[in-house]
Amino acid sequence: MRIMVINPNTSTSMTEHLRQELEKIKRADTELTVTCPTVGPVTIESAYDEAMAVPPTLELVRLANREGYDGVILACFSDPGIHAAKEISDIPVVGIQEASLHVAAMLGYKFSILTPLARRIPHKHEEVRRYRLEDSLASVRALGMTVAETDADPRRTKQRILEVAARAAEEDGAEVMILGCAGMAGYAAEVERELGVVVLDPSAVALKLCEALIDAGLRHSKRALFARPPEKEFKK
Amino acid sequence: MRIMVINPNTSTSMTEHLRQELEKIKRADTELTVTCPTVGPVTIESAYDEAMAVPPTLELVRLANREGYDGVILACFSDPGIHAAKEISDIPVVGIQEASLHVAAMLGYKFSILTPLARRIPHKHEEVRRYRLEDSLASVRALGMTVAETDADPRRTKQRILEVAARAAEEDGAEVMILGCAGMAGYAAEVERELGVVVLDPSAVALKLCEALIDAGLRHSKRALFARPPEKEFKK
Amino acid sequence: MRIMVINPNTSTSMTEHLRQELEKIKRADTELTVTCPTVGPVTIESAYDEAMAVPPTLELVRLANREGYDGVILACFSDPGIHAAKEISDIPVVGIQEASLHVAAMLGYKFSILTPLARRIPHKHEEVRRYRLEDSLASVRALGMTVAETDADPRRTKQRILEVAARAAEEDGAEVMILGCAGMAGYAAEVERELGVVVLDPSAVALKLCEALIDAGLRHSKRALFARPPEKEFKK
Amino acid sequence: MRIMVINPNTSTSMTEHLRQELEKIKRADTELTVTCPTVGPVTIESAYDEAMAVPPTLELVRLANREGYDGVILACFSDPGIHAAKEISDIPVVGIQEASLHVAAMLGYKFSILTPLARRIPHKHEEVRRYRLEDSLASVRALGMTVAETDADPRRTKQRILEVAARAAEEDGAEVMILGCAGMAGYAAEVERELGVVVLDPSAVALKLCEALIDAGLRHSKRALFARPPEKEFKK
Amino acid sequence: MRIMVINPNTSTSMTEHLRQELEKIKRADTELTVTCPTVGPVTIESAYDEAMAVPPTLELVRLANREGYDGVILACFSDPGIHAAKEISDIPVVGIQEASLHVAAMLGYKFSILTPLARRIPHKHEEVRRYRLEDSLASVRALGMTVAETDADPRRTKQRILEVAARAAEEDGAEVMILGCAGMAGYAAEVERELGVVVLDPSAVALKLCEALIDAGLRHSKRALFARPPEKEFKK
Amino acid sequence: MRIMVINPNTSTSMTEHLRQELEKIKRADTELTVTCPTVGPVTIESAYDEAMAVPPTLELVRLANREGYDGVILACFSDPGIHAAKEISDIPVVGIQEASLHVAAMLGYKFSILTPLARRIPHKHEEVRRYRLEDSLASVRALGMTVAETDADPRRTKQRILEVAARAAEEDGAEVMILGCAGMAGYAAEVERELGVVVLDPSAVALKLCEALIDAGLRHSKRALFARPPEKEFKK
Repeated sequence: MRIMVINPNTSTSMTEHLRQELEKIKRADTELTVTCPTVGPVTIESAYDEAMAVPPTLELVRLANREGYDGVILACFSDPGIHAAKEISDIPVVGIQEASLHVAAMLGYKFSILTPLARRIPHKHEEVRRYRLEDSLASVRALGMTVAETDADPRRTKQRILEVAARAAEEDGAEVMILGCAGMAGYAAEVERELGVVVLDPSAVALKLCEALIDAGLRHSKRALFARPPEKEFKK
Repeated sequence: MRIMVINPNTSTSMTEHLRQELEKIKRADTELTVTCPTVGPVTIESAYDEAMAVPPTLELVRLANREGYDGVILACFSDPGIHAAKEISDIPVVGIQEASLHVAAMLGYKFSILTPLARRIPHKHEEVRRYRLEDSLASVRALGMTVAETDADPRRTKQRILEVAARAAEEDGAEVMILGCAGMAGYAAEVERELGVVVLDPSAVALKLCEALIDAGLRHSKRALFARPPEKEFKK
Repeated sequence: MRIMVINPNTSTSMTEHLRQELEKIKRADTELTVTCPTVGPVTIESAYDEAMAVPPTLELVRLANREGYDGVILACFSDPGIHAAKEISDIPVVGIQEASLHVAAMLGYKFSILTPLARRIPHKHEEVRRYRLEDSLASVRALGMTVAETDADPRRTKQRILEVAARAAEEDGAEVMILGCAGMAGYAAEVERELGVVVLDPSAVALKLCEALIDAGLRHSKRALFARPPEKEFKK
Repeated sequence: MRIMVINPNTSTSMTEHLRQELEKIKRADTELTVTCPTVGPVTIESAYDEAMAVPPTLELVRLANREGYDGVILACFSDPGIHAAKEISDIPVVGIQEASLHVAAMLGYKFSILTPLARRIPHKHEEVRRYRLEDSLASVRALGMTVAETDADPRRTKQRILEVAARAAEEDGAEVMILGCAGMAGYAAEVERELGVVVLDPSAVALKLCEALIDAGLRHSKRALFARPPEKEFKK
Repeated sequence: MRIMVINPNTSTSMTEHLRQELEKIKRADTELTVTCPTVGPVTIESAYDEAMAVPPTLELVRLANREGYDGVILACFSDPGIHAAKEISDIPVVGIQEASLHVAAMLGYKFSILTPLARRIPHKHEEVRRYRLEDSLASVRALGMTVAETDADPRRTKQRILEVAARAAEEDGAEVMILGCAGMAGYAAEVERELGVVVLDPSAVALKLCEALIDAGLRHSKRALFARPPEKEFKK
Repeated sequence: MRIMVINPNTSTSMTEHLRQELEKIKRADTELTVTCPTVGPVTIESAYDEAMAVPPTLELVRLANREGYDGVILACFSDPGIHAAKEISDIPVVGIQEASLHVAAMLGYKFSILTPLARRIPHKHEEVRRYRLEDSLASVRALGMTVAETDADPRRTKQRILEVAARAAEEDGAEVMILGCAGMAGYAAEVERELGVVVLDPSAVALKLCEALIDAGLRHSKRALFARPPEKEFKK
C-alpha cells in the first residue's frame, strides 16, 4: 500500500526527520512518501498559521488522490484542514491528532495531552471537543517551553516531560499521555518506564491506524460531512 | 464608530445586497464598510470552500486593524477563519453565526437552524458544538433546496421555510429560528407572524452586537486562545 | 428608547449608585429609569431572599410594560424572577447574569465568576447550568469576604480580586472574569491591565445588550417557555 | 414521625384530595398534616404563578420547623421554592418532582414525563436539568389538554395518557412514566398493565422517600447550597 | 416485609458485621436475611473479582425470588451484577451504590466518594457515569490505605477520612460524602460533626430505600433494559 | 503475530464461521486461534447471559497470556468481561464493540448501531456511554427480528437492514452503520452501495485494530483502571 504523509508546515528538516522515524516502523508492504508544501509557515503555532498552511496542504491531498495513493496522513498535531481534506479525498485521510485521541481513549480511562506553551491549552481543549472525546480527557498540560527551547535543550525537555506527565497521572488521573508536539518525540519509552503510563507518539499511531484502515478497505463516509464539494467558480 | 463587514466569498452582488440591508438598520453613529475578497470562491458551501476563502479574508481583517476600524464582522454563517481573525485583531471580531447562536439561546429555551441542504446538517451540529451551545439547540433542519434554487424560486422558498420552521417548532420544540443562509433573508417577519416564534437574521443580529461591544469598550481576550500569533517565516 | 432598570433589592443607596454608573455609559438616545421595590430584603444573598424579592420586582416589570418602556433590566446577579418576568412581559427583559455569561462565552474560551463567599459557589454553578453554559465555565471562585466587608475595605477587596482572578486565569484557564457582585465594581480596569484578561461588569454589559436587542426589534419568544400565564384566581 | 405535606396552591379541594390519597398509603407510624397557603394562586401553571405561591409556602415550611415536624413535602410537581425551603429548614424537605425523577432513574434506563400542555415542555426539560438528570430523560410529552379538561373528561384523559405513554415507550424508549400533574392521578395501574412500564405517582413516591429519609436520620447538607440565609432587614 | 441482603463476597465475618448493623436500623415490620455466596472471592477489589463473584451472587437472587422475598439488596459498593440481578428478578433489587448516589444527589449540590486506593478512582468515575449522575459528582478521593490497613489501624483510618473529606469539601465543593468501603463505616457521625457535611453509609441508605420501594409497591421496569432473559441452553 | 480470538458464547458453529471470515482478511504475518469456552450460554442476549459467559471467557484470556499470544480479541458485540480481561492481561485486549465504535466515530459525524430486538436498545445506549462516545451516536435501531429469525430468513433480514439503515441515515443523520450482531454480517457491501454510508463489520474492524496495536507495540495502561488484580483467596 502507498501512503502519502504530509507535514503541513514548510520545514524540510522536520519533514526529513519524520520520514526517518516512520520508515523505521512502517509495514514491509507499505510504501511511504513523506512531503511538505513549498509555500506557507515553517512552523504551525496558531490558528493563523494553520489557516495559511491549509491551502497548499490541500494541494498535496489532491495530488495523492490523483496519483493513486491508498491513504493520506496529516502530520501536524492540530490536524489542519482535515475536514476539507476528507471532502476532496476518495482515499482515507488520517490526522495524527484524531488517531491518537481515539487510540488513547481505548487504552485507559482518561488521557492527557502535553503541549509546549500554556496559551495553547484552550485550543487543545477545543480540538478534543471537536472530536467529541472530552469525556475521555484528563487534562492538557504545558511544558512551559517553546518549540525552539525543546529543540535546544533536550535535557530540560526530558525533565519537564517527566514532571508534567507525573502531575497529569497523579493529579488528573491520566493513564495515557499524548506527546502533542514533534519536539517531545523520543522520550516516550522513558516516561512509560518511570510512570507506568502508556505514552503515545501521534505520528506512529496514525501510521498504524492508516495501514489498518487501508487493509480493511475502509475510508470516511462521503454521505454528508465529508461529501465532495460542489464545483464552482474560484476568482484568482 | 467604524465597522468593516467582510463577506468572505467573492460575490460582489451578495456583498452589495448585504451593504444595502445593513445600511438600513445601522446606528446613526455607525459608519459601515461592506467588502469582500477579490480572490477565492464565489460561494462557500463546504469546508474546502472555507479553507480557500480564509487567507484573503484575513487580509481584509488585517486591513481593518491597520486602518483604525473599531470592529469587524465576518458575514458568512459558518464564521470562516474566526479564530485566526481574532488572533490577528486588536479590535472586536463578530461572526454572524456566533452572534446569532448566543442571542438565540437568550430568547427561548431552544433554537433551530434552517439550512439549505441536508448534507450540511452534521456541519451545523459541529459548529454549534464549537460554540459550546449544543444544549440550547433544538435541531438543524434543511429546506432541501440549493442556494441557487432559493434565489430562483422565492415562492417555494417561502413555503419551505414556513413548513420546516413549523416542524422545528412543533416536533423539536424550537422557540427561535435562525435563518442560516443569505437566500432565506426577507422571510423573517412572515414566519414570526404565522408561527409565533422569534426569527433571527444573523447579519442584523451581528451588527447590533458588534455595535454594543464597541460601545461597551469590549473585545475578545488576548490571553490564550486568541493571543497574537508568534512572528515567523512564511515561505512564498 | 426607554429602559427600566430594576434593582430587585430594596436598598435605595445601591439603586442610586447603579443609576449613576449606567447614566455614564448609556447611549445618547437611551432614557433610563433606575428603580427598586419598596418592600423586600435590602440585599439578596440566598434563595430565600430571592423568593421574597421576586413578587415586588414583578410588580415593577408589569409597570414597565404598562407605561410603554422599551425594555427591562433585572440588575441583581442571580437574575431573580427572570422567567416570570419574561412571561408577563411583552418587551425584552435582560438579566445581568444571563447577558454577561453569554458575552463572556464569546470573548474567550472559558470564563470565571468571582463571588463573595464560598458557600454560594454551588449556587453559581447551578445558575450557569440554568443558562446551559457550563461548558464555557472555567470556575467559580470566592473572595472569602462578605458584601459588607468588600464595602468596608476597598484596599483588601482589590487585592483579593487580583489574587483570585490570577488563580482563575492560571489554574483554571479563565480568559474572561465576571465580577459577580456589586461590591466588586470599579476594579475591572486594573484587573484587565495586570492579568491580560477581559473583565466584565454585568450591569454595563446588560445595558449594552438591552439597547442592542431593542434596536434590533428583538425580544424573547412567547411561544412556550415564556408564554403569557393563563388568567386565574389569586386568593388574597 | 410527623410530616407536613404542603400543597403550594390555594385550592382546598385539591389539598383535601391529596390528603385522602396519602392517608391511604402512609406508614402506620406516620402522622400527616396536609395543608395549603391561604393566599396565592389556586393553580400553578407558570413561573409567574410559582413566584407568587412561594412566599406563603415558605411560611408553612417555617411553621413545620417551629412546630417540631420531622419532615416537609412540597406537593406541586414543579417543586416551587424548594431551594429556599431547604435553606430555612432543619428538617428534610422533599419535592415530589425531585423524588420521582430520582426514583424513576433507578427503575429503568430512561423515563418520560407526561404534562398537560405542550407549551410547558421546555419548562419540564429545564427542571430535569436543574436536578442534573437529563441523561436519564427519554422525553417530555404533552396530553394536549388543560388541567380543567383532564378534570372534566376522565374518559378522554385516560385515553390520551395511554396514547401518549405508548408513544413515549415505543418512540422515545421510556421504561418509566411520571404522571406530572395531579389531574392524571388514578390511571397508573391501567397504564402499567397495558404498556408494561412502571408508572410513578409523584406524591406517593415523595411520601415514601420522605419517610425513608426521616427513618435514616438524613436531611440535606447545610454546608453551602442550602445553608441558612444570613439575617437581614426586610422592608415591609 | 422480607428482604434478602446479599454480600457478594464470601467473607462470613463481613456478612455477620453487616447483619448486625442493618438489624439495628431496620423497620419493625422488616425481616432481614443477610447472606453471602459460598464460592468466590473473599473480597472484591477489581473487575476480575466482580466477574467471579457475580454468578454465585445471582444464584442467591434467584433464591430470594423463589422463596417469596419482597426485595433484594446487593451489599457491595460496586453493585456487582446488578443488571443481571434485575433481569432475573420480579422483586425490587437495590444496589448500595446506586441507592447512595441518588440519595446523595438529592441532599446537596455535589457529592464525593471516598475509596481506599487511588488506582480504583477511574473505576468509581465509570460507575457514577453508569448511573448517569456524573454532573452531581464533586470528586472521588482515595485514603491511600488498603482495606486491610483500614481494618488494622482505625485511628489512622479516622484521621485520613477526616483529612480527605475536608479536602473534598473545601477544594471540590462536595456537600455530601459517601463512604465507599465497608472499612470506613462507623466514622460517619464524627465527620458530619467536624465538617458540617452529610455523610452516607451506603448499606443503611439502601435498606431504607428498599423498604420504601417495597412499601410503595414499586420495582424496576421489566420492559427493556431489565427484561427477563430469553430461555436458552447453557453448556456445563 | 499470534492473536487469540475468543467467541464468548459456546456455539462451535458460530466460532467456526468467525474463524473462516477472519482467516480471509488477516495479515499474512498474523496467526489466528479462534476459540470459545466449553461451558456457558450458547448465545448472549442479556446481562445474565453475559454474567455467566464471563468467567470461562476469562480462563481463555489467561491461557492466551500464558501461551505467549500477542493479543486477544473478544468477539461478542457487548464486549463481555472486557475490563476484567484487561486487568488480567499483559497483552492488548480488543473488544469488537469498543474497536468499531471508535473507528465509526472517525469515519463520519455520527454512527448508528443496528441491533436485533428493540428491548436491547437501552443496553446499547449504555454501552456507548460506557465508552464515552455518546456524542458520536446518531441512534440505535432494531430490526425487530430475533437472532434465530435473522438466521432463518436472510431475504427479510437484508430487507430490514436496508430499511432500518436508511431511516438511521435519513432521520437520525447517521453516516456510519455498525452491524451489531453476527446474524447481520454479509450485507455490508450492499448497504454501502445503496445508501452511500460506511458499514462496519465489528469483527473485521477489531482484527485490523488489534494487528495495528500489536505492530505499534501498544497495549492498555496498567496504571489504574486495568491494573493487575491483587492476589487473594477464592472459595471453591
